Amino acid sequence: MDTSALEAAFLASQEEVGRKGDVVRSLKAQVKDGQVEKSAVDEAIEALKQAKLDMEQKQKEYETATGKTSSANKEAFRTSMLNALERRLFFIPSFKIYGSVAGFYDYGPPGCAMKQNVTQIWRDHFILEENMLEVECPAVTPEIVLKASGHVERFTDFMVTDLKTGDCHRADHLLEAALEGVLEDKKNPPSAEAAWAARDLLARVGELGAAELGAALTQYGVKAPDTKNDISAPFPFNLMFKTSIGPRGDMVGYLRPETAQGIFVNFRDLLYYNGSKLPFAAAQIGNSYRNEIAPRAGLLRVREFTQAEIEHFCNPNDKSHPKFESVAAVSPLLYSRALQMGDEKKAARMPLGEAVAAGIIANQTLAYFIGRTYLFAQRIGLNLERVRFRQHLVHEMAHYAEDCWDLEVQCSYGWIECAGLADRSAFDLNAHASVSKVDMHAYERFAEAQEVDVVTVLPNKRELGRLYKKDAKAIADALEALSECDALEMAGKLDAGQAAALTVGEQSFDMQPSFVSIKKERKRLTGRNFTPAVIEPSFGIGRILYCLFEHCFYCREGDEQRSVFSFTPVTAPVKCTVFPLLQRAELNERAAAVSAALTRERLSNTIDTTGTTIGKRYSRTDEIGVPFAITIDYQSTEDGTATLRERDSTAQVRVPIAELPSLVRRLTDMEVSWKDVAAKYPAQAQAAGDE
Amino acid sequence: MDTSALEAAFLASQEEVGRKGDVVRSLKAQVKDGQVEKSAVDEAIEALKQAKLDMEQKQKEYETATGKTSSANKEAFRTSMLNALERRLFFIPSFKIYGSVAGFYDYGPPGCAMKQNVTQIWRDHFILEENMLEVECPAVTPEIVLKASGHVERFTDFMVTDLKTGDCHRADHLLEAALEGVLEDKKNPPSAEAAWAARDLLARVGELGAAELGAALTQYGVKAPDTKNDISAPFPFNLMFKTSIGPRGDMVGYLRPETAQGIFVNFRDLLYYNGSKLPFAAAQIGNSYRNEIAPRAGLLRVREFTQAEIEHFCNPNDKSHPKFESVAAVSPLLYSRALQMGDEKKAARMPLGEAVAAGIIANQTLAYFIGRTYLFAQRIGLNLERVRFRQHLVHEMAHYAEDCWDLEVQCSYGWIECAGLADRSAFDLNAHASVSKVDMHAYERFAEAQEVDVVTVLPNKRELGRLYKKDAKAIADALEALSECDALEMAGKLDAGQAAALTVGEQSFDMQPSFVSIKKERKRLTGRNFTPAVIEPSFGIGRILYCLFEHCFYCREGDEQRSVFSFTPVTAPVKCTVFPLLQRAELNERAAAVSAALTRERLSNTIDTTGTTIGKRYSRTDEIGVPFAITIDYQSTEDGTATLRERDSTAQVRVPIAELPSLVRRLTDMEVSWKDVAAKYPAQAQAAGDE
Repeated sequence: MDTSALEAAFLASQEEVGRKGDVVRSLKAQVKDGQVEKSAVDEAIEALKQAKLDMEQKQKEYETATGKTSSANKEAFRTSMLNALERRLFFIPSFKIYGSVAGFYDYGPPGCAMKQNVTQIWRDHFILEENMLEVECPAVTPEIVLKASGHVERFTDFMVTDLKTGDCHRADHLLEAALEGVLEDKKNPPSAEAAWAARDLLARVGELGAAELGAALTQYGVKAPDTKNDISAPFPFNLMFKTSIGPRGDMVGYLRPETAQGIFVNFRDLLYYNGSKLPFAAAQIGNSYRNEIAPRAGLLRVREFTQAEIEHFCNPNDKSHPKFESVAAVSPLLYSRALQMGDEKKAARMPLGEAVAAGIIANQTLAYFIGRTYLFAQRIGLNLERVRFRQHLVHEMAHYAEDCWDLEVQCSYGWIECAGLADRSAFDLNAHASVSKVDMHAYERFAEAQEVDVVTVLPNKRELGRLYKKDAKAIADALEALSECDALEMAGKLDAGQAAALTVGEQSFDMQPSFVSIKKERKRLTGRNFTPAVIEPSFGIGRILYCLFEHCFYCREGDEQRSVFSFTPVTAPVKCTVFPLLQRAELNERAAAVSAALTRERLSNTIDTTGTTIGKRYSRTDEIGVPFAITIDYQSTEDGTATLRERDSTAQVRVPIAELPSLVRRLTDMEVSWKDVAAKYPAQAQAAGDE
Repeated sequence: MDTSALEAAFLASQEEVGRKGDVVRSLKAQVKDGQVEKSAVDEAIEALKQAKLDMEQKQKEYETATGKTSSANKEAFRTSMLNALERRLFFIPSFKIYGSVAGFYDYGPPGCAMKQNVTQIWRDHFILEENMLEVECPAVTPEIVLKASGHVERFTDFMVTDLKTGDCHRADHLLEAALEGVLEDKKNPPSAEAAWAARDLLARVGELGAAELGAALTQYGVKAPDTKNDISAPFPFNLMFKTSIGPRGDMVGYLRPETAQGIFVNFRDLLYYNGSKLPFAAAQIGNSYRNEIAPRAGLLRVREFTQAEIEHFCNPNDKSHPKFESVAAVSPLLYSRALQMGDEKKAARMPLGEAVAAGIIANQTLAYFIGRTYLFAQRIGLNLERVRFRQHLVHEMAHYAEDCWDLEVQCSYGWIECAGLADRSAFDLNAHASVSKVDMHAYERFAEAQEVDVVTVLPNKRELGRLYKKDAKAIADALEALSECDALEMAGKLDAGQAAALTVGEQSFDMQPSFVSIKKERKRLTGRNFTPAVIEPSFGIGRILYCLFEHCFYCREGDEQRSVFSFTPVTAPVKCTVFPLLQRAELNERAAAVSAALTRERLSNTIDTTGTTIGKRYSRTDEIGVPFAITIDYQSTEDGTATLRERDSTAQVRVPIAELPSLVRRLTDMEVSWKDVAAKYPAQAQAAGDE
């Protein structure tokens, strides 16, 4: 594609807007931590505005000069690509004949084939390569599982409703729009003080509770979009689809919001299956469900989607990875916390070995999966210049997480999270152990026996029972559940004759020395029980596919109508098309035989026997990204050869028909390159109008 | 396996029970049609009882003599197999740590791998081979789709509840149990008349409506099982899981009860994608959901399961299949309507070409898919002596169906329906066309233009509007929707000056000659629009897997504890295990290198480096059905060879390590047989205790 100086300037200005946006984000984080003055955020937002104006100017210049569609013109590019995707049934809005339902899409034939291919590559690349334990669990899940995981309580977005129409909106989206309106109001520009307050709030929208959100919506007089009606107070809306299991109607179930919980509940059996040895990884590929309040961004935010999740269980004291060396030299774009907070605001390539050594990535296992994920992105044909790993800022992570990195892929919507790689410590297993009362420990035998201090807490159940009757059991349980530190602190207080309060649920009880015996003893241990830590790489297959569509789509030079998807052979939905040059029985028969031979090699292929020009037929096949095409012409009937054409170069060679199936097989498996093929077989001159 | 005369006698008696059961079924059908006296059913039931007694006797003799587990002893066989399946995590009751939920199972690692393999073989065998259009649609489905398909109204079972506990039961199951109780009551044997009435009802349980069922339950004094409490009147319980889409709570959705509807709603787009040409087939593999009232029979009746469905669309006037010749000589066991109604009650092998020629199978396309299904069963390794195709009796089919055949596989539960192949005529497309108002026609160009009579109906909208105001449009629509026959009948009446009533919804209107013009004209047509017929092969992947487990399970001669799954290499969950003979670094290293080489060939494999005897390790690997095992011993370090062992023969050969990966690859793809390998490489003598 033509890359003029104007395009380069436009692209650079886009980059600059991205960087300035990152500056604002990191400053907001620092203001929260009190490291930076609030006025710095103001300045950064002003700089971001200027960069946006500059970018719009550069875009206009570029578009005026070229008048053409390219990835630089994001909106037009996306529209053109989505048209091609919908025209060729890569996807279809679900239930289209009934008017569709937001957030649901069908994969049509080429989309479905590509999804299969990408999923199969994922399975080979991760599960087969690491000997992971794959499981498949139901989507319908009883409430208790998702209570234990925290989803019933916390998997919510704040919603407001239009008080007249009942329409639903996300409270945070409305507030953000209102605040941006205040700041950009040219007619009634806000006072410096008001602007500051709006900016401050904007930086914190994601963290507000219901009451604060409600107060802010009232303060800024936010109304429903479109109708301008009054809105309700915000309330949490759980994003899980609810259902009922069994005929009685008394067992609440949900459609799982992620596949991971199915692995956690099976942890014990899987550990046993693995010979009780750590580390091991389990994986699941399956559909998850989120009842989004207002699905936007087309294929990127949908209500039913395929996840591929890995849970790598390991010893929290040893997160080394035996195969780390194999990825130590891999150098993906890393966008570390430091780079996000620094001046450049730009990801940089760094070998993973160095990143671990420098403490940038928390441990080898997390880095190993970052490396494998990068190689996966390469294998499926993403543009590696538009793939980065962004580390979560400290305030973005859950309290239990040790380190998190997102695989972000750049597309017309910006940098999109396509996978998350998180060190979640022992949070999930502990949560299920605590609710199910099932032991989720692994056992570690020490290399040599160790002398350690062990704190034992022995409640005097008889005494407690006598004094506290029905509360006695809860008190005893709470005593036994004390952490070592808390137990020793209580022992100290009791020994010193001080009051020692014990919290049990919402009550508090004063402990007496006679209630409990707390001792610290030195013991000789040959091993220990522990809850494994889990490192979780979690992939959104649909988002990865969407980004792949964007990275592979282009229009052939000189002709806007001829769109092409440059899928790599392994991901392409159809591997090869077969064309009889003319509608003649002897050519059709040979074409059918070639097609059957390709099928025997398990290569998906189609025959196009329509009488249209060969150029038009190539064009149709380019549009669904078929990498190879075989044309049977009269020479084929004479010398048993046919032409083989490669999609992106449009070059053709002449190959004996007998060699074609295995040749296309090897090209598809990427065991030989087109370059090798072009060197080996004679080139075929193109007839006029062929392309 | 040892097959004594006793086992043969027992097996024969089992067959006889099956045949006698079929006799009862066919007689019941004939009684309904009035072809047979009711007393004939009595006699047949009596004969069935005698056959059962005989079988029990034969079973006892066989068990006493052998004291061993074999497929002949169904219960013990099943228990032994289920233990192996659960012990090795082929499947796991879902949410086990929370006490499980009936009807939900997880696939653990080997189960999941096998499901992947069987699904992939299905995809290659059907989708790739026929160039089918694969789609993937959401499970969450808005109500209107399932109203159109009839599922909201009719996808129900009759339920009764225990009036005290609220427990739910299937009304038909309770009535059947009660009737069987009456008939088998030794203490108070029923009078001849009462027995006849009970038998008659038993034959019709599946066809009773709510009122009849309720009356029968009252008449026989049926109480709740276990509690013996009173039960409610029966009421229809819809088996779909219900949910709500979007935040407003006003859009009812269901989890799809089958994947087929996703194909039907996309028919128009798919037809266009196929160049508007018929025939073509679309397919979908995905999960479906049925909220069973009381799931029984373990893995065979579950609430969430994977379907693989094909919809083959064709011209109702031409159901020939271009590739039929390729299966015409295939001879599966066919259990036709005639054989079910005849004396032998036994399926017979017949070439499909003959079956179509004799009119036993309705058309080539249906027979083609029966043939392909049979070859699929062969490919995945089902025992073809225990696979049959049973034709639906006329009263078993929906009114619109032209012909239906079930793939039935024999297992310890009897003959189980694993796939249904149905010619459903144009029912589904018509249903969606009528509700969605979207045209579902295909167009057929006639070979030569045809003169045909065309009836046109032109409502006089002005006149109707003047007289009927708001009803006018509905009347005009109803007139235009008249069938040709109805329109001509109305024209006749109007011409004759008779009253002609038009039904519009629940109202009736008298038509006058001035309201409508109905004409029959001779026209010259070059083609026609028609709704395609659909032939639907629909597979339950879970049931097929379960039957495969049963067909492949056996205990090795002479040792009850050594259970083996004789999976074919293509379906086996793991293709090869690698054992270092002893725990020595140099052997472990070589084993690791062999394993890595197998992985590069995309062969799933595991290393077992535990120090247990090689015999025990073979045993562990037999139990999950791994077909091949490689052992690295000291000779390997000297001459670079290793032993390769085949699971079922337990024979071993010595092969150069360098040749192993591609050899195991070809063995797994079933390109070479073990016989070839044993002929080519030197046999390895087994060390004592190896097996």
